[in-house]
Amino acid sequence: MPDRSEWFPVSKSQSPFYAGIDLGGTNIKTGLVDDLGRTLAYHREPTLVAQGPEDGAQRMGQSVLRVAELAGINVNQIARVGLGTPGTMDIPAGMLREPPNLPGWRQFPVRDRVSAHCGLDVTYANDGGAAAYGEFWIGSGRELSSMVLWTLGTGIGCGIIVDDMSIDGAHSHGAECGHIIVDASDDERLCPCGQRGHLEAYASATSLMATAREQFKKGAGGSLAEAVAAGEILTPILISKHAESGDQLSANLILEAARWLGIGTVTLLHTIDPEGVVIGGAMTFGGESAPIGRMFIERVRQEVRARAFPIPAERTTIRYASLGGDAGYAGAAGLARLEHRRRSGITFA
Amino acid sequence: MPDRSEWFPVSKSQSPFYAGIDLGGTNIKTGLVDDLGRTLAYHREPTLVAQGPEDGAQRMGQSVLRVAELAGINVNQIARVGLGTPGTMDIPAGMLREPPNLPGWRQFPVRDRVSAHCGLDVTYANDGGAAAYGEFWIGSGRELSSMVLWTLGTGIGCGIIVDDMSIDGAHSHGAECGHIIVDASDDERLCPCGQRGHLEAYASATSLMATAREQFKKGAGGSLAEAVAAGEILTPILISKHAESGDQLSANLILEAARWLGIGTVTLLHTIDPEGVVIGGAMTFGGESAPIGRMFIERVRQEVRARAFPIPAERTTIRYASLGGDAGYAGAAGLARLEHRRRSGITFA
Repeated sequence: MPDRSEWFPVSKSQSPFYAGIDLGGTNIKTGLVDDLGRTLAYHREPTLVAQGPEDGAQRMGQSVLRVAELAGINVNQIARVGLGTPGTMDIPAGMLREPPNLPGWRQFPVRDRVSAHCGLDVTYANDGGAAAYGEFWIGSGRELSSMVLWTLGTGIGCGIIVDDMSIDGAHSHGAECGHIIVDASDDERLCPCGQRGHLEAYASATSLMATAREQFKKGAGGSLAEAVAAGEILTPILISKHAESGDQLSANLILEAARWLGIGTVTLLHTIDPEGVVIGGAMTFGGESAPIGRMFIERVRQEVRARAFPIPAERTTIRYASLGGDAGYAGAAGLARLEHRRRSGITFA
Repeated sequence: MPDRSEWFPVSKSQSPFYAGIDLGGTNIKTGLVDDLGRTLAYHREPTLVAQGPEDGAQRMGQSVLRVAELAGINVNQIARVGLGTPGTMDIPAGMLREPPNLPGWRQFPVRDRVSAHCGLDVTYANDGGAAAYGEFWIGSGRELSSMVLWTLGTGIGCGIIVDDMSIDGAHSHGAECGHIIVDASDDERLCPCGQRGHLEAYASATSLMATAREQFKKGAGGSLAEAVAAGEILTPILISKHAESGDQLSANLILEAARWLGIGTVTLLHTIDPEGVVIGGAMTFGGESAPIGRMFIERVRQEVRARAFPIPAERTTIRYASLGGDAGYAGAAGLARLEHRRRSGITFA
């Protein structure tokens, strides 16, 4: 979320320009970026899901005009717009299908409606694929040739980039890797999607807190249990704070989530074999520079080294994302840039 | 393995021609195909692993000259050669690394040595990727836009085709999906690779027989147990035969392998989301037209329908392969064709 002081000056930028829209259940984030992915202007506003999809599409279209205005450029200097939305969706048709995070926005031709409201062509993407492309283009993965992004939060999002493209899938269900099966024989852990044995049921923030509550029920003690018993609200940040101050249960909960993320990562190494794996989202415990962030990612790496084939285990880099909440709009703009270049016959990188 | 009577006549064929080599631990299979993938000539000879890789490369190169001679064409009518080998390998470097199925053929520049011996450019591929491309180009997957091939045998091979390309991975370990983790908490099932919880430990011919032996030890009865106790050798075919004649244990063993293959397939649907999944290899129980083959694939489909997201569960076709032992050389030739066309600037299909 770059504030005005961090915007890259248009006078030094490289055209053509692209706008990227990151549609979420809470906010619409729109950024204007140059040909090197530098943010020239940024606008955020609430999604206001209850006002319905046509109102949302209109405001998304207007947000593109708005970032052009903020940057002081003419809208026709924007070569193309990228739009990332949560699923379910039909990417080739440009349709929202039945997105759980946007109740009521069903069977809506979001790509073409946004396009109509801003007068520009729109490239449509899954939000996980857009965020992955953002990290791949200008973030933690910028020197990688292929990449998987895990986005850890309430759920587990994923994006896969191979050959400079996001794996969208034949039915727009590619890279739904929070729902790979890591433990088919476990009948206890229910994924929010309703199925069992999915990675998301073991390594998301939701599962971290569910496991903590299970441990409290079993009588686990320590400072985290005491804080929650005293009325503090259980969150991943609270667990992280107590882990940092030495609470063993808190540390174990985080290490266990990391272990499962490592297991899921092994499955992707043996499927996609990306050059690198990037971990982003809200549940990254302060990143590599924070003690718990370091502990978490080290545990992921350890599990991968122990379980993957020797060559990918040794060579696949695993690191934290660097773009934070900018990955979605930047990546959507990057995917728009790819399509613009493809249509213009520009094949070099 | 087409015999001479099945070769497509050169007089009706479509140039350019491609040769494909399928290098296995037992045989070298070489086919000459036309631009539509029709086999014009075929040659097979033993690999003779103990004679070492340079001898093998020489005979592979000669086999290309041989199929040209058999078809009555000039070798310079072959636009390019494709070569598929078992891993481990370094695909961009054209090197065999340490293939378990080719003991002693270590760190060998197989692509360039075969090329030197036939005087033609060679495209190098993983055998799983080559077989998948074969089914995708001219086999069961010919009308699919993207595809996963499971090759069920002693182990579980895999190939993934997305955007008319095989997913080779950044470290030549792409599509090693026999080694995705399906049950991380199971400490009992050891995969032949030495790790635990891998799909191959639940759904390969080896695991089918291991599970049968476990059941015998536990005292399971029935006609299969009796046959083995009387000295018959336990094979997937024997299990299939007894399942067909009504032995419940045999049927359950096959259904359990199918269930696990369905679980692994769900993970690929939520990762790659291919348009279709094709099942080939030695362990396909006679295919869709045989009662046990039908029972097996129906159980796979059932598990996928029960566990995958509704849209891929409903829309992803799951069927048997159609090329048998021809998939490897045909697919290698197809990958050579792709590279030839790319280098020639031919971008249409």
